[in-house]
Amino acid sequence: MPPPALGEFALIAQLSHVFGPAPPDVVQGIGDDCAVLALSPERYLLWTIDSLIEGIHFDLAYMSLKQLGRKALVVNLSDIAAMGGEPQYALLSIGWPPERELGGALEVAAGLQEIAEKYAVRLIGGDTVRSPAGLMLSLTVLGSIRPEELLCRHGAQVEDLIYVTGPLGEAAAGLEVLRRGMELSPEPQATLLGAFLNPQPQLPAGRCLAQHHLATALIDLSDGVASDLFHICTQSRVGARLNAEQIPISAALSQVAALLHLDPLDLALKGGEDYQLLFTAPAHQEPRLRQCFQAAGLPPPLAIGQIIAGDRVYLETPAGFQDISGAGFDHFLGLTTE
Amino acid sequence: MPPPALGEFALIAQLSHVFGPAPPDVVQGIGDDCAVLALSPERYLLWTIDSLIEGIHFDLAYMSLKQLGRKALVVNLSDIAAMGGEPQYALLSIGWPPERELGGALEVAAGLQEIAEKYAVRLIGGDTVRSPAGLMLSLTVLGSIRPEELLCRHGAQVEDLIYVTGPLGEAAAGLEVLRRGMELSPEPQATLLGAFLNPQPQLPAGRCLAQHHLATALIDLSDGVASDLFHICTQSRVGARLNAEQIPISAALSQVAALLHLDPLDLALKGGEDYQLLFTAPAHQEPRLRQCFQAAGLPPPLAIGQIIAGDRVYLETPAGFQDISGAGFDHFLGLTTE
Repeated sequence: MPPPALGEFALIAQLSHVFGPAPPDVVQGIGDDCAVLALSPERYLLWTIDSLIEGIHFDLAYMSLKQLGRKALVVNLSDIAAMGGEPQYALLSIGWPPERELGGALEVAAGLQEIAEKYAVRLIGGDTVRSPAGLMLSLTVLGSIRPEELLCRHGAQVEDLIYVTGPLGEAAAGLEVLRRGMELSPEPQATLLGAFLNPQPQLPAGRCLAQHHLATALIDLSDGVASDLFHICTQSRVGARLNAEQIPISAALSQVAALLHLDPLDLALKGGEDYQLLFTAPAHQEPRLRQCFQAAGLPPPLAIGQIIAGDRVYLETPAGFQDISGAGFDHFLGLTTE
Repeated sequence: MPPPALGEFALIAQLSHVFGPAPPDVVQGIGDDCAVLALSPERYLLWTIDSLIEGIHFDLAYMSLKQLGRKALVVNLSDIAAMGGEPQYALLSIGWPPERELGGALEVAAGLQEIAEKYAVRLIGGDTVRSPAGLMLSLTVLGSIRPEELLCRHGAQVEDLIYVTGPLGEAAAGLEVLRRGMELSPEPQATLLGAFLNPQPQLPAGRCLAQHHLATALIDLSDGVASDLFHICTQSRVGARLNAEQIPISAALSQVAALLHLDPLDLALKGGEDYQLLFTAPAHQEPRLRQCFQAAGLPPPLAIGQIIAGDRVYLETPAGFQDISGAGFDHFLGLTTE
């Protein structure tokens, strides 16, 4: 019998073993959205790296170079948002294929710079290389946070409520619309394509949670709620129960799911790249949570379930409970793993 | 007529224009080996990113996964050495091709960890993704340095001597030996393959120059002396004269050059990936320079020329002067550009 396939999370666990435990000045090493360094007593440094590879993370048949540049920075800034922090600086490593006109790199740069200006980030260096087969963008971002504000994946407590900052599954649906060349009515078309092509990092929501000490655990939604909530549960040593009726499914998502004969709930729970925030907070904080989000001009966070004892993530539907722990996108095992 | 090809350095200049000038807390932005951040008054932060892409930077036909892991960290540590700094932390982004067994990633990790332990660097996080066509490794490293010790590419003064920390061209020769499957006698074979497969970051030499304030400008040799010295000249607004008779050419390099009917001087000046340091220092510092290197257990630095007024790099041979400004490896224009 061949050995079982090594998935992304098993690989990370094994790499983490090779690299050994983090030293004392590393507040958070492998296993969260950012590494966290205690370089000064007043500010922790947040540090992340993310790569986008042509043919895996993007297809230039339905994404412009400028949109690609925007998204490459957004996915990194989303990691800073997922710790509650403020981004400050970025370095870019760009691998450019020989058959593509090099001037296109300036379109990528224009997209990067647009997001950089919007979120007060400075691009201050990098590396430019040839890439034989497809475009590659690696970005690394540094941000910072006050030590007492830091939010990690661990920290969720039994009975905490589980929230998301916005609708789910729209980016995955937008990708399907593009792949199949579908034409919906203008409004849902714009909503879904926008979710996939122009996601925004939820930095204001992350700051709101951090500054007001509202959350117990925080992560960004890159692989889908089922998968990302499982990370919170694993690192907090708890389980979770999601309420199917509370999962925010927009009219646009329902419409496209019906056309594709897909379950909208499945897209919402397992679709990746939403870049919304997923967090846990004590139930008694709900009024303060709503008030702080409102004061910051943010839409109210949406409760979708509750932390429970155990180590599994369940979906509660009228038909009963279903174990969806870790279901969603695994880069190494295929599109969905259950 | 088609527009002239945009080379790597022209591209970097244009990207730098898109990203705008660096803010005041950025001591050094685009255009040196590391970005330098003044996050505290006592220590500057040094920050670099470098990517290695299969088919461009390495060929696994003649390099093991462990050697690749070592080299991926070495090229980043060499950037820290090139500012005189001390490396501290690294993040890894790895793009893994579907046809390659994922367990191989642990061999890459073992190589990374070997170099990390040797130079007291901690790998504290990263990102693992699929890569459709070839293996990709992006590493970002953070280091630090006291503000008064920082060494940049600018700072070279007319009449300064130009030094390198070791032999040149051996890595490029080693690559040719591997590509052509040559069999030299054991000693030169080991020397040249070692230079290409197991380069070491010249961190002790960089620290020696920085701590004792011995150098006026510093860079690491990734693209070849002709090209890398031209960076020092451009940023210091000076020219340079290299003395062909002073260029360190080892017996191993001479031997392989003869077999390949290549000019060893050409390999020494334009061969990339030596990862030695290239620096400038006032002539009167020579005795202190030798003394400090000796006290640190380092081989004496080798003078290869002198800084002159102007903006060109010349090679002085018995036949006269030759302009070699920027000759060497350009990732976008092909192997050598003159």
